[in-house]
This record gives sequence, structure tokens and C-alpha cells, in this order.
Amino acid sequence: MDDANRITAAILVIGDEILSGRTKEKNIGTIADHLFALGIDLCEARIVADDHQAIVDALNALRAQYTYVFTSGGIGPTHDDITADAVAAAFNVALDEDPRAIKLLLERIKPEDLNPARRRMARIPAGGELIENRISKAPGFMIGNVIVMAGVPSIMQAMLEAVTPRLKSGPAMQVETISAIGTPEGAYAALLGSIATAHQGLSIGSYPSLVDGQFHNQIVIRGRDHQAIAEAAAQVRAMVENLANERAKTTRETPK
Amino acid sequence: MDDANRITAAILVIGDEILSGRTKEKNIGTIADHLFALGIDLCEARIVADDHQAIVDALNALRAQYTYVFTSGGIGPTHDDITADAVAAAFNVALDEDPRAIKLLLERIKPEDLNPARRRMARIPAGGELIENRISKAPGFMIGNVIVMAGVPSIMQAMLEAVTPRLKSGPAMQVETISAIGTPEGAYAALLGSIATAHQGLSIGSYPSLVDGQFHNQIVIRGRDHQAIAEAAAQVRAMVENLANERAKTTRETPK
Repeated sequence: MDDANRITAAILVIGDEILSGRTKEKNIGTIADHLFALGIDLCEARIVADDHQAIVDALNALRAQYTYVFTSGGIGPTHDDITADAVAAAFNVALDEDPRAIKLLLERIKPEDLNPARRRMARIPAGGELIENRISKAPGFMIGNVIVMAGVPSIMQAMLEAVTPRLKSGPAMQVETISAIGTPEGAYAALLGSIATAHQGLSIGSYPSLVDGQFHNQIVIRGRDHQAIAEAAAQVRAMVENLANERAKTTRETPK
Repeated sequence: MDDANRITAAILVIGDEILSGRTKEKNIGTIADHLFALGIDLCEARIVADDHQAIVDALNALRAQYTYVFTSGGIGPTHDDITADAVAAAFNVALDEDPRAIKLLLERIKPEDLNPARRRMARIPAGGELIENRISKAPGFMIGNVIVMAGVPSIMQAMLEAVTPRLKSGPAMQVETISAIGTPEGAYAALLGSIATAHQGLSIGSYPSLVDGQFHNQIVIRGRDHQAIAEAAAQVRAMVENLANERAKTTRETPK
């Protein structure tokens, strides 16, 4: 698949509480997994504060660049929930109360409790289509290529599932993971670089992690050309085995 | 403290593995907590792929806007570790092997094992100052207002601690958290909005979370003016208590 046919996405997380450290961000990983399974390439994520201009600027930068932009956070009833206002401003459209959204709110809220603050959750930018929220009813919405979702993880997930049938999906990305535990990155970096150079259509990465002070490395090959992935994976496996054998030999020859 | 004296920061996380969902991002939360304690206002975070131009563009946008930019990821020995190259390109300076960095690598790596791939980890953009890494020795670096750190969380943390004495810090942010468990956001949104409007210098947020299908809300007041925080917190506490009392009264009057 050439680049012109790629379906791409960005995530925009909105919320002071993430940037202050108070709340640990969890939605990016969930959305990333979901998009990966749909064959949509997540290319960028941003976290911005509850700041009107910051949201508008990030939204306009991202929606011009990617097939989809998924936002999370800032669509509740309180004064710091300003995402709908910012989305309407970014698209330069009106933000009015939507009767369909009011109807959904009334499934959970008694008419006498539907005060002005709660009605704010029914304000949808003109042209937006609602996204159902089976958890707490207040809907998200999709306008143009922008999908606006809640920040509370379980509600965000419900909205992500609800909007999925409306998204274009791509051919699923294939992944091969080869463990290189015990072999340091520096020992295979040059060979792995040659394999990557010979397979430009694939993404080949080496991911170290530290477990009890020892590096546990994994080499991950991702792409959409099954043949090329199989070939590269065979080369990586052979490389890792050779290095392990060499190391075993050296250890035997120079006992400690 | 007026805006001109604020010390601000952004985080730039670099790595395909975060965007593919394979690795769940953990460094943003750690850095956010650390900066909060230092009185540095984290204003934005971005995650980009292992893509030279994407890193250069994000770095140039962020370093122009904030006091500091903290990057994480992409400084290992493999072909997909391209952060140092991108930082050098963004600053338009040379990227040469630094003898001080080689010396640090030799504390962990035997001279005969210091192959070209491992030497890549000693390439530091001209003008950069090393950041010590007590875990695996390969250093991070600081150039201008950009702090370049590893992606492996324990190594990133070691570098963050090592660079801290070189950072300007601000007056610590004060926080008051008021629990509003049992009171829905929609019931207090209007009153809370008035309190926020009357305290423009503070950040007042309402953070819902779902526990067993019930909203557990917390109201958080942050700022640097102790007097204003105490006043706003007293008003929020009174508001939450009044609402709880009203609800208790209504429940008594209209038994189920």
C-alpha cells in the first residue's frame, strides 16, 4: 500500500489534570491498540491544557494533516469543559443545543434536573453527528474528520466502539516479534540496520526494557507485505541465533 | 506570579512503539509529577514516530514556545535511534563523537566491544552538555533548552534526576482537592463556574471518574496564591456540603 492510500490518525488529549500529573493518561494506549487493529496508522498524539486557543491550534494542525483526529476530554457539564466550544471555533461553525442530544440526556436525567450546566453537554457544533454513549448517555460527536470523545476511560471506550463502524479501515498491519533476550542491542545493531535498509517498506524496531537490571530486548517487524515480513523475520531470527551461539562459544573458551 | 515569570515545559516522546500501541507510554506521567514538584508548568506533550522530519518539526515548534523541552526515546545504538541526529538538525549544529561520552561508555563496555553501533550513543550535538546515566552509562544530553533522555523508564528517571540541579525552578504550585463523591457534576457545575470566575488566577477543575458505574468526582484547585486558594477551597467545600444536605433532605421528604 503506498502512502497516498494510508489511513492515518492523530490523538488530541485535552486536560490540565494530565499535564499536572494528577491523572495518568490512559486513553492514548487504548486508542492506539484499537486503531492498530483497524489498520489505521496512528502518527501523532498531543496533550494540551484546558486552554481554548491551544485546543483550536492543535486541532487545526492535526485535522489538516491526518485522515482522522480523535479527541478525549473536556465534554462534561463544568466550566472547564471547553472542547465543544473549541471544536466549533476550529471549524468556524455555530455551537447550538441539539434536540437529539437533549433526548439522549433525558434517558438518564429527569426533566426537572436538566439544568443549564447539563444542557451544555447537548451543544453540538453545526454539522456534527452524535456518537452514542451507553455508559452515561451524554454523547460525543463526529464533525468532518474529528471524533470528539469523553476523557473518562470507560466512556471514551464506549464512544470509540460506537464510532468504529463509521470509520474507513485499512488492511491490518502484520507484526512479528523476535525476542533477543540476553543479546545486547549494541551487538546486533549493525546487522539489524542492514536488514532494515534492505526492507524499506517495513518498520523494524529494537525495543529494550530493563528487567532486574538486565536488558530484555525485542525486535519488532511491522508492515503490510507478508512476504517481506517473513523474509526479514527469518533474517532477524538467524542473526539472533548466530549471536547467541557465538556468545556461548566465547563463554566456553574463556571460563570465568 | 505573572505569566512572564512562569517557567514552562513541554514533553516530546519519540517512538513508533508507543503509537502502534505495543508499548504503553509511562514517562509523561513521571515527568509531569517531577516538574509539578519543581514549580515548572508542563503545558503540552507530544508523541511522534521515529521520523526525522516529524521530530525536527515538533522540537522546533516546542523549544520556541516553552522554557524547557524534555524528550524521551531514540538514543540507543540501533538504526531506529535517530533522536540525536534530529536534535542536531533542529539546532543546525554538527553531531560528532564526544570523548566525554566515550569515556562514560567505557565504564560499562569493554574497549573491544565498543563497535560503531555503540559509538553512535556517544554522538552529541555540538554545544550539548552530557546528562549522566547511572543505570547503563550511555548519557543523555542538554542543548539550549532541550533535555534529551532515554525511553526506558528507569533510565529516563535517572537522567531526569541528574539534570534537575541544572533547571530553573519556580514557586511550587499549591493544590487543594475536595471530594464531591455522591454529588453529580451537573448539580454543582453552575456554582463551581461562578467560583472559578471569581478566582481567575487559579485553575479550578472538576474531575469525574467512574467507580462501579457511579461517578466519583473530585474538585481540584491549583495555584500559587495561598490566600486565594484557601478562600476558593472554603467556598467549594461549603457548596458541596450544601448540595449534600439538600440531597439528604429531598431523600427524606420523598421516600422511595
